[in-house]
Amino acid sequence: MPLVKKYLFPAPVLLDYMTRVLAAAGVSLEDAAIAADVLLSADMRGVASHGIIRLFPYYSRRLRDGLINPRPQPVVLNETPSSLALDGDNGLGHPTGYRAMKRCIAKAGESGAAVVTVRGSNHYGIAGYYAMQALPHDMIGLSFTNASSLVAPTYGRTPILGTNPIAVAAPAGAERPYVLDMATSIVPIGKVTVYERAGLEIPYGWGVDSQGRVTTDPREVFYGGALLPLGGTAEMRGYKGYGLALLVEILAGVLAGSAFGRTVDPDAHTKVSNIGHCFAAIRVDAFRPLDDFKGDMDAMIRELKDAPKATGQERIYIPGEKEFEKTERSLSEGVPILAEVVNHLVRDGEEAGVPFDLEPVGVKEEVEV
Amino acid sequence: MPLVKKYLFPAPVLLDYMTRVLAAAGVSLEDAAIAADVLLSADMRGVASHGIIRLFPYYSRRLRDGLINPRPQPVVLNETPSSLALDGDNGLGHPTGYRAMKRCIAKAGESGAAVVTVRGSNHYGIAGYYAMQALPHDMIGLSFTNASSLVAPTYGRTPILGTNPIAVAAPAGAERPYVLDMATSIVPIGKVTVYERAGLEIPYGWGVDSQGRVTTDPREVFYGGALLPLGGTAEMRGYKGYGLALLVEILAGVLAGSAFGRTVDPDAHTKVSNIGHCFAAIRVDAFRPLDDFKGDMDAMIRELKDAPKATGQERIYIPGEKEFEKTERSLSEGVPILAEVVNHLVRDGEEAGVPFDLEPVGVKEEVEV
Repeated sequence: MPLVKKYLFPAPVLLDYMTRVLAAAGVSLEDAAIAADVLLSADMRGVASHGIIRLFPYYSRRLRDGLINPRPQPVVLNETPSSLALDGDNGLGHPTGYRAMKRCIAKAGESGAAVVTVRGSNHYGIAGYYAMQALPHDMIGLSFTNASSLVAPTYGRTPILGTNPIAVAAPAGAERPYVLDMATSIVPIGKVTVYERAGLEIPYGWGVDSQGRVTTDPREVFYGGALLPLGGTAEMRGYKGYGLALLVEILAGVLAGSAFGRTVDPDAHTKVSNIGHCFAAIRVDAFRPLDDFKGDMDAMIRELKDAPKATGQERIYIPGEKEFEKTERSLSEGVPILAEVVNHLVRDGEEAGVPFDLEPVGVKEEVEV
Repeated sequence: MPLVKKYLFPAPVLLDYMTRVLAAAGVSLEDAAIAADVLLSADMRGVASHGIIRLFPYYSRRLRDGLINPRPQPVVLNETPSSLALDGDNGLGHPTGYRAMKRCIAKAGESGAAVVTVRGSNHYGIAGYYAMQALPHDMIGLSFTNASSLVAPTYGRTPILGTNPIAVAAPAGAERPYVLDMATSIVPIGKVTVYERAGLEIPYGWGVDSQGRVTTDPREVFYGGALLPLGGTAEMRGYKGYGLALLVEILAGVLAGSAFGRTVDPDAHTKVSNIGHCFAAIRVDAFRPLDDFKGDMDAMIRELKDAPKATGQERIYIPGEKEFEKTERSLSEGVPILAEVVNHLVRDGEEAGVPFDLEPVGVKEEVEV
């Protein structure tokens, strides 16, 4: 994989810039700041595909084109002591998701566990952000969203399901929390792009061509093909990944009453997306004393990390661990943004009247993803 | 894969036999009948690895050896309107799980959504059985359990996590319900045994040898090696499967306060297992009108089934669909039990004083699994 140039920017400066761009597109300062924080969090955690790269194409431009409502008035559709169904009124997914999860946590605080759905929303960035909101409340948080069709069901050949992520966060004691944030496809489509640009073949099983045959040519996945769900081929039990992708579609799409399947975001440039989300929160001390839980989480984490390593490997990671380390590095040395993305930001910022005139604090060369 | 002989038995006859065996081991008739129904359900659904094959080694023998409590008195540890933590008092996992899910459904009926954990339990058979209990109540049901260590974490080489299943059932309208019931490993260990007996290599990625290297030799997985989580290698994103296996360990092990990691059932022949479960139920009409949900479930299912097929494929399946068809076949032609398993039942039944003198209604030759 070839090296690419990345500029390093201080986190607060990026946060401020993104907030200004969204506010300039009509969003309230409060909502803009929440959305900017979710996007920044992605870049800091090393999930650049979901960060500032999306600021203009996914959000600013859709706001300006009238496809996202800059001043939504979310509506309660149904409510019980441990459930809540919301309509996001076509607002940005990030503030909508953030507030939905906040209400989910409040409900779990009262009743022990709660589930909240949202329909009429938009791309909300990294699913893990919302799951992690539960951590300071000593709860387990879950977050699901559906997304544009990119993944073929097992034995199919056309993309029907989204990369539909599952995110779960659980607190620990002395150890860092467990934070799983995974697409239910093997890789996101952006990873296939990276291989294409590098002139490399993709590993066998990541995707299929237009006839549903596994292909190692990234272009065949793009043009008429599809991504495969986690697992890949049927022999490797890709139908489990397909089952999980469909589970997310049921929770975030069908249960929420939003779009589902191929009707999700069929054409990002001309239609309202009606994406759906689902959140859940589980209050740990409704089940057992918090200190006992945290002590056992630490013991479980240490058992895994201290276990014998495979030949050639030096570490066993806990889900979320790499992302915590990247966040710390982003805070100390600056948040890495691809030089190519910076070029786009300069062009798009000028067009939107919010020039990207930020000064990098450093530069480095790294493998792209 | 070579053909193997299977005898066909009427379902009620198998149910009666298993109930008698468990009752003879000291279990109440009511509990014995529940456990027998879960085991029978596995054989009927085509999950023979979790069916009658386990009757003696997993249950009857452990009951007789004093490792499972035949007359448990489950205890409520903590309770809120939408949560419940139980101690199963070391009873059979099936009646314990069945009743825990029943209470979970009752709680979700009152409050909209509920989560129930169980510690101090035993192997509960197929996870999907409990998730499916939610279906007649028009709820989405979820069921998780931890299990003996068989799966290595990504970059590890020793088994630490169980094959920790995730099961979810969601009702539909005219279509059959969605029923996902998946181990978070690629395959169960029994599948590796089948390949070993057939003298075949296992596909690359299913398991590792004692040094953590991927191996295609089933014996190397058994003797000092481990299964790999869904996805397989890191390149194929096996760390997502590992993350899911750990999620189940957190919900069913750490949150429940049961054993977790390598302490789960370290030696089935001499120790109490202290397995844990976690159940959840979500009342659909707490979120949106039931008919709307079911209509959209049907539409989603049809969209998938009607989608273009990959070259050489004729059907796209919905999770659970194959198992419903196998259940129907089991009801019409008899439940298939491996001839080899029948031999074991005859031997073990005699030893236990409950002779396996059932008359098969047919015989057939099939691929083993």
